Amino acid sequence: MRGAVLHAPGDVRLEVRDDPAIVEPTDAIIRLAATCVCGSDLWPYRGIEAVQGPAPMGHEYVGIVEEVGSAVGTIKPGQFVIGSFFASDNTCEICQAGYQSSCIHRELMGTIGTQAELARVPLADGTLVATPGLPPADLIPSFLAASDVLGTGWFGAVAAEAGPGKTVAVVGDGAVGLLAVQAAKHLGAERIIAMSRHEPRQQLALGFGATDIVEVRGDEGVARIRELTSGLGAHSVIEAVGTQEAMMQAIRSTRPGGHVGYVGVAHDVELPGEEMFFSHVHLHGGPAPVRRFLPDLVDLIWNREISPGKVFDLSLPLDQVAEGYRAMDERRAIKALLWP
Amino acid sequence: MRGAVLHAPGDVRLEVRDDPAIVEPTDAIIRLAATCVCGSDLWPYRGIEAVQGPAPMGHEYVGIVEEVGSAVGTIKPGQFVIGSFFASDNTCEICQAGYQSSCIHRELMGTIGTQAELARVPLADGTLVATPGLPPADLIPSFLAASDVLGTGWFGAVAAEAGPGKTVAVVGDGAVGLLAVQAAKHLGAERIIAMSRHEPRQQLALGFGATDIVEVRGDEGVARIRELTSGLGAHSVIEAVGTQEAMMQAIRSTRPGGHVGYVGVAHDVELPGEEMFFSHVHLHGGPAPVRRFLPDLVDLIWNREISPGKVFDLSLPLDQVAEGYRAMDERRAIKALLWP
Repeated sequence: MRGAVLHAPGDVRLEVRDDPAIVEPTDAIIRLAATCVCGSDLWPYRGIEAVQGPAPMGHEYVGIVEEVGSAVGTIKPGQFVIGSFFASDNTCEICQAGYQSSCIHRELMGTIGTQAELARVPLADGTLVATPGLPPADLIPSFLAASDVLGTGWFGAVAAEAGPGKTVAVVGDGAVGLLAVQAAKHLGAERIIAMSRHEPRQQLALGFGATDIVEVRGDEGVARIRELTSGLGAHSVIEAVGTQEAMMQAIRSTRPGGHVGYVGVAHDVELPGEEMFFSHVHLHGGPAPVRRFLPDLVDLIWNREISPGKVFDLSLPLDQVAEGYRAMDERRAIKALLWP
Repeated sequence: MRGAVLHAPGDVRLEVRDDPAIVEPTDAIIRLAATCVCGSDLWPYRGIEAVQGPAPMGHEYVGIVEEVGSAVGTIKPGQFVIGSFFASDNTCEICQAGYQSSCIHRELMGTIGTQAELARVPLADGTLVATPGLPPADLIPSFLAASDVLGTGWFGAVAAEAGPGKTVAVVGDGAVGLLAVQAAKHLGAERIIAMSRHEPRQQLALGFGATDIVEVRGDEGVARIRELTSGLGAHSVIEAVGTQEAMMQAIRSTRPGGHVGYVGVAHDVELPGEEMFFSHVHLHGGPAPVRRFLPDLVDLIWNREISPGKVFDLSLPLDQVAEGYRAMDERRAIKALLWP
């Protein structure tokens, strides 16, 4: 099969890789209907995270089940399925508490690499969620978004306790931040402030339910959020970047007793203890337990109540994967969908 | 009147200070029935926090109202009252959300200094809670504990979401940590692990409801908590120290999806962003909004359902305030009560 491999920063190639095979009896093999490039793929692509030799890339996936191992019970060949970037058993105490991305048996899909034609999915019964039937083609991008960016934005909004009567601010206008706006809207937030300096992204944010746009960032951004909230700060702030500046902007934009949901992968972030202490904020986040939300998200997409697929503003055949990375790296695209 | 004044690290003296007077119409003047020395008073006493000139000391207080300003409505002269270390209006949006220690009009009682015979209490109606009647003498230490250490331990337990079915660990065996054990017990926690190496404090913890004692700390302490919790970590961990080691011990002792409630005042603490991210813990804490809990705590003490006064293992006349500080500094006493 063909699959994307990162050789060095900036050097991603589509290569012939071995077809995956069932390794554990709990595995499934899926044929990808679509895959995509994630903001987090840019960390190693940019050399900010070390590249470990030639590395298969990709951790977002939707597709049709080709084969299942002997211990797989609920997932069947022929089903259209979605899974998350962590495979999880969905039965351990941590999964049952809703933290499937910290499952005691979790496996990282990024190591397997789903920017490919086929992929092995471990713990298939726990990991995969099937759609009610084969989806129409126009819904595939939305289901693909549910695999990571939608589920991650959703977790950010839930961690920030977005809901009725709340003012929610979103730091970060990538796909995750934009879909956090959609999640906050769906969760009933009264006011949603998207922080973005890019006009096309502002338009998407407004389409997803943002009520206000703030173009300034850092201390100026914090001051603007306070102005918009009677000097108190937002009830809920979602951080979807992962830098020191974005984290501090999120914490300082939150009122005492409010909630910060952080889903940007923290890189070189240090949180000052004394400021955190006196801020009185709740802080929660981490790798999104997308599996917790997938059944509901699948329903919402199937019933066309949400359309997260709009974040894909570039669509390429898989053999142009390198252009997908380049376009996102140069911020020419919000998110690149790849058709295998 | 007589009141304690800190002149330099290690140098606290009882001196004659001006009697307080009503300054704002929302003030009350109280005659202290009892006051005490707080673990946080030891930070400037030890020179870890800068001493700002001769500084009045003390922020814990119970007493009888002597006089009220013209705008005070519910608090009356003659009432026995308890307040917290932050005066608060109890009406602003932040107070109404339960964060009175971040009240938009808050005033720090430590600046006023309650290790004295009399004290001015700002925002009396919002700050003070009256007991149903004049309390019997043996309850006074427990009401005094409610002014800070009990309310702070309670907030730690609530922030850590201690409750039925939960395993709770407490880092810190000072008065706050010990009373966090009592709070966790009252909130219905199934198992309460007190981390302490001091036999008398272990005995108090067991008396307050601890089910297990862990004597090791740091990485060893984390390993022991994991052993006691099927390798997962505790559901709820209360941090009641305020150092880097204690914070990291608390975070690492918590299972993914679990809650850290931190109430030790953070000194030179930096939280590593990436570790926080992957820990999946909820983090909440800060200066306890004691006022949120005071009405319930007053009832529990009045009805003799809890006896937090047991943390006072040294009782001195106010003129021996210097010995109270020394005994706590040298860990000869858990907490020193002072009779004016």
